[in-house]
Amino acid sequence: MGLNMAKQNIYDNETFFNEYRKLREREVNANNLFELPTLFSLLPDLEGKRILDLGCGTGERCMDYLNRGAAKVTGIDISEKMLAVAKSENSSPDITYLNMPMEDIGSLEGEFDVVISSLALHYVEDFPGVVKNVYRLLSEGGIFLFSQEHPLATCYTGKGDRWTRDENGRKIHVNIAEYCVEKRTDVTWFVEGVQRYHRMFSTIVNTLADNGFKILKMVEPYPTEELVQKYPEYYDLYHKPDFLFVKAVK
Amino acid sequence: MGLNMAKQNIYDNETFFNEYRKLREREVNANNLFELPTLFSLLPDLEGKRILDLGCGTGERCMDYLNRGAAKVTGIDISEKMLAVAKSENSSPDITYLNMPMEDIGSLEGEFDVVISSLALHYVEDFPGVVKNVYRLLSEGGIFLFSQEHPLATCYTGKGDRWTRDENGRKIHVNIAEYCVEKRTDVTWFVEGVQRYHRMFSTIVNTLADNGFKILKMVEPYPTEELVQKYPEYYDLYHKPDFLFVKAVK
Repeated sequence: MGLNMAKQNIYDNETFFNEYRKLREREVNANNLFELPTLFSLLPDLEGKRILDLGCGTGERCMDYLNRGAAKVTGIDISEKMLAVAKSENSSPDITYLNMPMEDIGSLEGEFDVVISSLALHYVEDFPGVVKNVYRLLSEGGIFLFSQEHPLATCYTGKGDRWTRDENGRKIHVNIAEYCVEKRTDVTWFVEGVQRYHRMFSTIVNTLADNGFKILKMVEPYPTEELVQKYPEYYDLYHKPDFLFVKAVK
Repeated sequence: MGLNMAKQNIYDNETFFNEYRKLREREVNANNLFELPTLFSLLPDLEGKRILDLGCGTGERCMDYLNRGAAKVTGIDISEKMLAVAKSENSSPDITYLNMPMEDIGSLEGEFDVVISSLALHYVEDFPGVVKNVYRLLSEGGIFLFSQEHPLATCYTGKGDRWTRDENGRKIHVNIAEYCVEKRTDVTWFVEGVQRYHRMFSTIVNTLADNGFKILKMVEPYPTEELVQKYPEYYDLYHKPDFLFVKAVK
């Protein structure tokens, strides 16, 4: 699997890496407000479990999973720079970090009870290949939980503004084009040419179903009214969620 | 179930009924080009099966299912006018038509092997109630197959144009607002005040999963290139599919 497919390693780009670190250090960001609480809310009981984290980055989640009772955590990431931080800041005898693109997990040995991936799968071209390997690596009844950029975000074509605004500059709706055209969309995020792969909802669901998974839950996080009062800029998420979560069982 | 929930019977509106009949009589329409072929492509083997058709309308599909080998077909619809046509044009000793809103199928006796609903569930407020009853009525391993208006269509808020156009009037993108706000959206379709219920993808998936279904397949139909060459107006479906299909198993 994954032969001749691009494996993007944007996190080893110096500029990207530094800007990304700064973003994550902000206390109020979409990750802390929506992605992380949703991820935690969807976690199964981790007590004594063997965890595989696909795209573990700097390892904060690996440490979280250990603190929630996991027996062993394996974190893989394509980026050496991210793993260097992980090894220095989130190290434990029960965490193994491997420098490996998730397209290559076919070479992993062993069995896992829970496979988790936070905001990494939209960077992967060979989604079916990853799903097939995750299924193989999971124990019977094992859980695959992942978040990715929402299909209404990845389908943006890059032409013009993503939003239509009123005369005061207030966003009134999101502009959706070619939702049904599945392709790589290169966007500028800190640096030019960050590659994201757009997949329709049905493709995500069918890839899981075709490979034997039963979908337990999907979440498209959006803010509570209280949160919008505090941070009005997140009202936009009612129009277009940033993230999609899927929890499936083998 | 379904207490205090609106049960819409727009198909018994004289104007709506007549205009709807005219639309369906056109040879080239979205139903014939996309909805019907997709529905047929997702049908399980019907040989000897007991079928329940939710929102059967004028009964063409009931007759189709019988012609594909079904043993018995039960068609239910809230509209007396539609059923009058069904009984006159698509009658058979093996088809039973019942005048009943699908919110009331809790009162049905018996067991079915396949429950099908074509373009009716977006009219229903109590989607969880219907799903729960379908699960109960299905035999073990039974199939629930339905189509509905696509969530990118039902989320339209009704303010302004659904499309943004270029200076030549060509549609360039669809305007999506409040995708995360689930509510009834009243639209004008032949008559004013046709009630549709918007549900997010995740709500549809979770309602099925929470009630015990395993999702086998989702389809968001869009045209082939050849079809767009023949009928250029259907290019719009690349931006926003009209329909969503779900096939699930008990």
